[in-house]
Amino acid sequence: MAAEAAVRAVDLGFTGVKFDPAGPYSVFDGRQPSLERLELSERYTSAIREAVGNRADLLFGTHGQFTPSGALRLARRLEAYDPLWFEEPVPPDDLDGMARVAAGTTIPIATGERLTTVSEFAAVLRAGAASILQPDLGRSGGILQGKKIASIGEVHQALLAPHCYCGPVVAAANIALATCSPNFLILESIDRWDGFHADLLETPIRWEDGQVIPSTQPGLGVVLNEEVARAHPYEGDELHLTPEDVPMPFEEDL
Amino acid sequence: MAAEAAVRAVDLGFTGVKFDPAGPYSVFDGRQPSLERLELSERYTSAIREAVGNRADLLFGTHGQFTPSGALRLARRLEAYDPLWFEEPVPPDDLDGMARVAAGTTIPIATGERLTTVSEFAAVLRAGAASILQPDLGRSGGILQGKKIASIGEVHQALLAPHCYCGPVVAAANIALATCSPNFLILESIDRWDGFHADLLETPIRWEDGQVIPSTQPGLGVVLNEEVARAHPYEGDELHLTPEDVPMPFEEDL
Amino acid sequence: MAAEAAVRAVDLGFTGVKFDPAGPYSVFDGRQPSLERLELSERYTSAIREAVGNRADLLFGTHGQFTPSGALRLARRLEAYDPLWFEEPVPPDDLDGMARVAAGTTIPIATGERLTTVSEFAAVLRAGAASILQPDLGRSGGILQGKKIASIGEVHQALLAPHCYCGPVVAAANIALATCSPNFLILESIDRWDGFHADLLETPIRWEDGQVIPSTQPGLGVVLNEEVARAHPYEGDELHLTPEDVPMPFEEDL
Amino acid sequence: MAAEAAVRAVDLGFTGVKFDPAGPYSVFDGRQPSLERLELSERYTSAIREAVGNRADLLFGTHGQFTPSGALRLARRLEAYDPLWFEEPVPPDDLDGMARVAAGTTIPIATGERLTTVSEFAAVLRAGAASILQPDLGRSGGILQGKKIASIGEVHQALLAPHCYCGPVVAAANIALATCSPNFLILESIDRWDGFHADLLETPIRWEDGQVIPSTQPGLGVVLNEEVARAHPYEGDELHLTPEDVPMPFEEDL
Amino acid sequence: MAAEAAVRAVDLGFTGVKFDPAGPYSVFDGRQPSLERLELSERYTSAIREAVGNRADLLFGTHGQFTPSGALRLARRLEAYDPLWFEEPVPPDDLDGMARVAAGTTIPIATGERLTTVSEFAAVLRAGAASILQPDLGRSGGILQGKKIASIGEVHQALLAPHCYCGPVVAAANIALATCSPNFLILESIDRWDGFHADLLETPIRWEDGQVIPSTQPGLGVVLNEEVARAHPYEGDELHLTPEDVPMPFEEDL
Amino acid sequence: MAAEAAVRAVDLGFTGVKFDPAGPYSVFDGRQPSLERLELSERYTSAIREAVGNRADLLFGTHGQFTPSGALRLARRLEAYDPLWFEEPVPPDDLDGMARVAAGTTIPIATGERLTTVSEFAAVLRAGAASILQPDLGRSGGILQGKKIASIGEVHQALLAPHCYCGPVVAAANIALATCSPNFLILESIDRWDGFHADLLETPIRWEDGQVIPSTQPGLGVVLNEEVARAHPYEGDELHLTPEDVPMPFEEDL
Amino acid sequence: MAAEAAVRAVDLGFTGVKFDPAGPYSVFDGRQPSLERLELSERYTSAIREAVGNRADLLFGTHGQFTPSGALRLARRLEAYDPLWFEEPVPPDDLDGMARVAAGTTIPIATGERLTTVSEFAAVLRAGAASILQPDLGRSGGILQGKKIASIGEVHQALLAPHCYCGPVVAAANIALATCSPNFLILESIDRWDGFHADLLETPIRWEDGQVIPSTQPGLGVVLNEEVARAHPYEGDELHLTPEDVPMPFEEDL
Amino acid sequence: MAAEAAVRAVDLGFTGVKFDPAGPYSVFDGRQPSLERLELSERYTSAIREAVGNRADLLFGTHGQFTPSGALRLARRLEAYDPLWFEEPVPPDDLDGMARVAAGTTIPIATGERLTTVSEFAAVLRAGAASILQPDLGRSGGILQGKKIASIGEVHQALLAPHCYCGPVVAAANIALATCSPNFLILESIDRWDGFHADLLETPIRWEDGQVIPSTQPGLGVVLNEEVARAHPYEGDELHLTPEDVPMPFEEDL
Repeated sequence: MAAEAAVRAVDLGFTGVKFDPAGPYSVFDGRQPSLERLELSERYTSAIREAVGNRADLLFGTHGQFTPSGALRLARRLEAYDPLWFEEPVPPDDLDGMARVAAGTTIPIATGERLTTVSEFAAVLRAGAASILQPDLGRSGGILQGKKIASIGEVHQALLAPHCYCGPVVAAANIALATCSPNFLILESIDRWDGFHADLLETPIRWEDGQVIPSTQPGLGVVLNEEVARAHPYEGDELHLTPEDVPMPFEEDL
Repeated sequence: MAAEAAVRAVDLGFTGVKFDPAGPYSVFDGRQPSLERLELSERYTSAIREAVGNRADLLFGTHGQFTPSGALRLARRLEAYDPLWFEEPVPPDDLDGMARVAAGTTIPIATGERLTTVSEFAAVLRAGAASILQPDLGRSGGILQGKKIASIGEVHQALLAPHCYCGPVVAAANIALATCSPNFLILESIDRWDGFHADLLETPIRWEDGQVIPSTQPGLGVVLNEEVARAHPYEGDELHLTPEDVPMPFEEDL
Repeated sequence: MAAEAAVRAVDLGFTGVKFDPAGPYSVFDGRQPSLERLELSERYTSAIREAVGNRADLLFGTHGQFTPSGALRLARRLEAYDPLWFEEPVPPDDLDGMARVAAGTTIPIATGERLTTVSEFAAVLRAGAASILQPDLGRSGGILQGKKIASIGEVHQALLAPHCYCGPVVAAANIALATCSPNFLILESIDRWDGFHADLLETPIRWEDGQVIPSTQPGLGVVLNEEVARAHPYEGDELHLTPEDVPMPFEEDL
Repeated sequence: MAAEAAVRAVDLGFTGVKFDPAGPYSVFDGRQPSLERLELSERYTSAIREAVGNRADLLFGTHGQFTPSGALRLARRLEAYDPLWFEEPVPPDDLDGMARVAAGTTIPIATGERLTTVSEFAAVLRAGAASILQPDLGRSGGILQGKKIASIGEVHQALLAPHCYCGPVVAAANIALATCSPNFLILESIDRWDGFHADLLETPIRWEDGQVIPSTQPGLGVVLNEEVARAHPYEGDELHLTPEDVPMPFEEDL
Repeated sequence: MAAEAAVRAVDLGFTGVKFDPAGPYSVFDGRQPSLERLELSERYTSAIREAVGNRADLLFGTHGQFTPSGALRLARRLEAYDPLWFEEPVPPDDLDGMARVAAGTTIPIATGERLTTVSEFAAVLRAGAASILQPDLGRSGGILQGKKIASIGEVHQALLAPHCYCGPVVAAANIALATCSPNFLILESIDRWDGFHADLLETPIRWEDGQVIPSTQPGLGVVLNEEVARAHPYEGDELHLTPEDVPMPFEEDL
Repeated sequence: MAAEAAVRAVDLGFTGVKFDPAGPYSVFDGRQPSLERLELSERYTSAIREAVGNRADLLFGTHGQFTPSGALRLARRLEAYDPLWFEEPVPPDDLDGMARVAAGTTIPIATGERLTTVSEFAAVLRAGAASILQPDLGRSGGILQGKKIASIGEVHQALLAPHCYCGPVVAAANIALATCSPNFLILESIDRWDGFHADLLETPIRWEDGQVIPSTQPGLGVVLNEEVARAHPYEGDELHLTPEDVPMPFEEDL
Repeated sequence: MAAEAAVRAVDLGFTGVKFDPAGPYSVFDGRQPSLERLELSERYTSAIREAVGNRADLLFGTHGQFTPSGALRLARRLEAYDPLWFEEPVPPDDLDGMARVAAGTTIPIATGERLTTVSEFAAVLRAGAASILQPDLGRSGGILQGKKIASIGEVHQALLAPHCYCGPVVAAANIALATCSPNFLILESIDRWDGFHADLLETPIRWEDGQVIPSTQPGLGVVLNEEVARAHPYEGDELHLTPEDVPMPFEEDL
Repeated sequence: MAAEAAVRAVDLGFTGVKFDPAGPYSVFDGRQPSLERLELSERYTSAIREAVGNRADLLFGTHGQFTPSGALRLARRLEAYDPLWFEEPVPPDDLDGMARVAAGTTIPIATGERLTTVSEFAAVLRAGAASILQPDLGRSGGILQGKKIASIGEVHQALLAPHCYCGPVVAAANIALATCSPNFLILESIDRWDGFHADLLETPIRWEDGQVIPSTQPGLGVVLNEEVARAHPYEGDELHLTPEDVPMPFEEDL
């Protein structure tokens, strides 16, 4: 099913597909992956690569679930399918551990969605922990910090892949940053920003054949439809991504 | 036979099987493994993996028999079977050598059964020599040292696998430590602590489907049956594990 | 005046005096100290040393105001007066910079009042950034984290000096931690926890001749007088320590 | 005489004075300073410090004349007068050597007037070669590169001191960069940009009591008087700073 | 077709064939190779190796198109075909990145055609960035610099492979350098210096069975035919190699 | 008084005097020295140097009482009196800390009386923790280990100063080792091995003008007087050196 | 043929076979192996392994013919046949290069036949350049140096394999050293020291089933037959091993 | 007397004076200097500096007599007199030790008179062991090696000071090398090459006011007077510099 979904995305023009079969995000520090998860991760990646061939890059995420040695065992299995990145292989504050993973695999390491300022990204780069930076402009300090992050990325030959788990306003900021950064790699999107994301803007984000067309308007290039926004207050009580309180030492079987 | 024994253990619910076909533990420093032992180790590991599949982790021990370069030759052969750990690949006081092995294989390195205080475990972690710590609470300084060892393990993303070659009192201490440590990985047991181990306690250690059920009693959670203990004084004159005075440079054939 | 105050404190039995003449704590990153501040810091330290002689240790704080090179210029002037520590010479998240300062002076470096978990203290020690740890149990994660912090301090030969800017309940926690930690160095207090601090407890913290007498009661050893607490709700709107928005590049003259 | 000139500058309000008595800038790589130059440099610095006291910082420049070991011999003599910086102690492309000087003295090292892009400044910081960056916006790639340089400076706790050997247009760019950079330290000027520098602009750069007052106009905040510029074409054939072909191994006596 | 061309060259006696299928040389910093380019590079290399077998070495060039992590992904695919070198895997001023590539592959790294002095080559060697040096005597400072470059190569066990994109006069200088350097590896040529290259000299460069026969004449060993040179002034306006302004993040499909 | 005792020893011909005023040896890890102890240590050393001038070397011992930063504060005060060594500045199992002390002072660091095998001495040397080795042949494994220890000392340019807290048989072994080791520095003695030490041997150790005269007899060169030995069985219950349970954080005043 | 010779040796009882198909030993520094030699070396090793299976270890020598990157290309091809060592992969004075090879392969590196003192072996071990030491007692300084070399080997977990290219007197010294060294690995012999080697001694070296039987006589355990020696003066004028003046950059075809 | 001799040399025009009061050159490895020698070395250096002031540089030699820690104790005393160099502070094959000395003093370290090829000088520079190179062209491999040595010196910012303990032919070679090397520092001479040195040449080496005037003749620029040479065969049996077999651990008193 994952492979089918990947093919549909690629048919729409997406140039990369992102997935995370490695297990639930937990409240604990990194753990060793179970043998089931190792095998599942490999089969998943293999199936998607077989389905999409060279038409799309594979982006393998884990939300920092593993210890460095656990991440390296996983990486060893994934390397044959040549994913474009291995995202947060270990908890993102363990820079030494992430650097050990980066040194032990040819899969580029990506990180950044939980980091907040240019100082934190600088520490990542100094440690040699990642070669792809994923600031989320809704969390990492905004556009000025974003430009600083892109600048220090440049001097370390690290590429920029803005992360997105917010709505279309942050997406517009990400697009602006990507457009003016020579080390831009790829842009994360939430589908094609259609549906409610489109309704929230006066003019939706333009998307054609897998490419976003940057706005030529001043500023962020989008105008929030405040009427729609006010009509849809958030009334839930859950975070975007809630770590599970999974049993240790091994996560549950699938 | 080893494969059959492994399957029986897994059928009982054990989630890992430990074995050491690499040769006798000697009074000397590390040596190069012989070609016979390299091949035997590989066939042994391969047979057990084939027999248990993903149902159990493989724990490969050596009791520190090899030089770093000898251990790396062995690791190269074992990597394909993805054991959960490679235990004491070199003599445990050679931290630089163990770190070279750790850096040269994706198999996690485990060590600790011969270490005595948190300072010694700290040296292991600072050297990058292991990612799995195996304190034995009967030797490593007791429960307070055990908590300190677990704590420094946490900040190096190292997991805890309490070692056990004593009776059920040390086992109970290990269980207590494991229960309160977020970086606990797996618990070493002597079978299911039945037989004489069970007799030695007022209430035996509870074990269900491959999992120990921690006691809810205060303290260690077990009470020694002193009458049974007094009835069985130790009258042997051998250590738990006596290094053999094997010929050098190569161990005997099997 | 500072020298006179120091003498009064020493006459009361305090074994250390803490002061920070190096300039206001600002919202900016580290800066170069001005020549006036360098000179003032030196005169201040010299006057207090002359006044108290060997009767008390000098604790020089800066609240992370300087760049590493600025801190080294200051340290060079202070070394002759042999203070017990130089606290937060640079912004506390600049571990590389703090390590450069630590390597460039014989004054022990202290840090920790703004750190929150054992992971952050571990990073300080791994970087060689400080040899005295100042967790504040009201911020650093509580007693369990405090014990973990003390444990990793032990294995790096770092001493423990619990920081205190809260009231007597945190003070009691600090005292408990100090009492059970072999690498305890010195305890920060707010005077002798008399006045309002004493009123807040059923039984005030005991203090004799410059030494706190740990409580022999269970738990923290103190009981909050909830009636007094409720009678004094906090109605201000300022933080304990508000960074000033001082002009750059140089702070104001005195 | 130098001391008198320094006092006049300080009386005008300048907060720093820059001088270079260490010898002529040559076409060769670094050399050992002669004993005469070592002594002259020390006397010069001593005299200016005595004359201006704490009223101004001393900025000691050398234009990269020395080998690392020669620079360290010079630094050892200057340290007592606490200059704010030691500029280009060795040829600016010898980052390893400059880092050795930086590690061997408490005088902050400054460099940058001959560097051209953010990559070159990044290499300086990665090597630990300097803690003060002196981009010259007429050479270092302009305002966007300037902001990138300031950004990477921030994450290394390095301060910004824009260099200036051009006219008032580059000065205006430097002022703009300084104004928006939190790690700005001090601004190099050519006197008070009066005389011909003032004539070249529609509205001269504002300068009051040793501080430049940034323009509130858009863009660079200055407008070139093109008529004046055209009336004064450059007809010389010398560079701003021509290296002398001095004899080796030792420079001439004074 | 490339394989056929390679066979023709080998039949003429050439002992190495050089090619660059990895994508167009761009104005940007390094990027990640696209999956198409990765596959094309592998197929290209595989086809040529199959065609020439052990009769010629394969020299894989990229003109610095990739980030270090991108270059490592490419190297992983090429290693099986055992090329003699991987040339400029990353932009040639990123020495740290090139060193990471060198450490991560068994293919020898070559660089140098854009470097100008012995200092730049020394930095390459100190960083461990390459083991084959390719000075171009028309750019790297001439014969004296060439001998210095060869000398520092010797002490780092780096071999010399003079680069050539100029005419027969630079070729003659390269030949002279190669002839007198014990660490000479292989000489780059433009065909057999026949045609216009031969016309430009009084006596063409001698070439027999894949080997250049060094001239025994004094000096460079060649005399320019000035009449021919004057008859063919260069009237184009393009550089030898113009970086393309290719779209980012991924180069065009083939 | 210490100075007078030193002069008496020097008058007897001793070429070095050893003393330890820095405080009592405790059961705890290293601590910060108190100001009194710092001052006492300095006055003590100063008085002895003044008394003996260049006639004898000063050997400053501490029995590992301090943290690395505490030891560095002490070393800074002692450096002016140029002692021949600073012995066990920190607990002897803290090699990283001892290496920091060694790197931060020009006083040579000595260690070894508590080490047992050549592996432990090798770790000291690899860490750069000491330049003078003090094996005690009664503890460090005997004469063969002693020769191994001297050999690894040689290849690290470390000198040998055999330690002695036993009787004349170990002394004779030390003398034999010293006699045949080219990197021998100085021999520790218990007075002149007269009194009971002389009675214990058939022929006492020969001592003339501050120099031991090695025996020319085979083996250790001494014969134990077994009659005397049997007549004086040890009936005490104290160790040679019992760590005191001193209060923390600061040792008692003198 | 090589495989057949290997089988004959193994049938005699030898436990290892040594060979060097990688090319002639030259007067130059290291070079890149040619493709022919790479392939020949692989085929040779493969054939011998196939012939002897696990009955004997393979010892691959090169006499220092390659650059580090060339040696790594060769090692990559040999690793599958698991030789016991790779001897002198690069010229033996290039310790940094040899260490790069050691770090890049799992084949243990052996070196030492051209080294002369314990200091040179110490440098090898400090650099991490080899894990098997091959002193030749006829060159490395004799038996005392041999014991020192074995001792430093012990503390680096390096094994001892005495090299032999001399006659039976040096062989006897090697045997004595091997017999008393716990880190002895394997002994190089010249056949079974029969023929002229046996004639040269009063009692030939004893050899049974692939094992040398150490003499129980005092001293070296052998007595030279001086009559035989005098009857056979050496009248040749060639060294044991004369480097060839092979053409560069590539050795001749086979 | 040494001071008077120094003044006479300076009056003749010499710009540096070289001396070695630190003790006799021995057959042993480095030792600790005795207190007498430390004091003598300091008084000697002080007296010469006082006598010559800034008119000449002081060149302090030791012929490698000390251990690294002994050399650092000596350097600490000499630093105040600012010698131009400290020559061979430790045995010249102990590069790690020499690098520790170089890192611990501001006196530039010189070495090279006993080294033979560019590889050995390269190892010195890579280790950071010296910043002044002293090849002796009669030993270091001749003019081509000399140019290679000067070239690698250039890229490490190391200066060249050709050493001379031979006659005027080697002196002429040294002069030729110095003349063509931009990193030349100072030339060692044997007086002014007058007396027998002058007689040995057809035209003596020209020397004016402390400067050698390079010959403008081809080749070395000198012609040996073979008649004079043949008339004075060397009939002694001593080396230029014979190490003494001094007693250990301390050299004799003066």
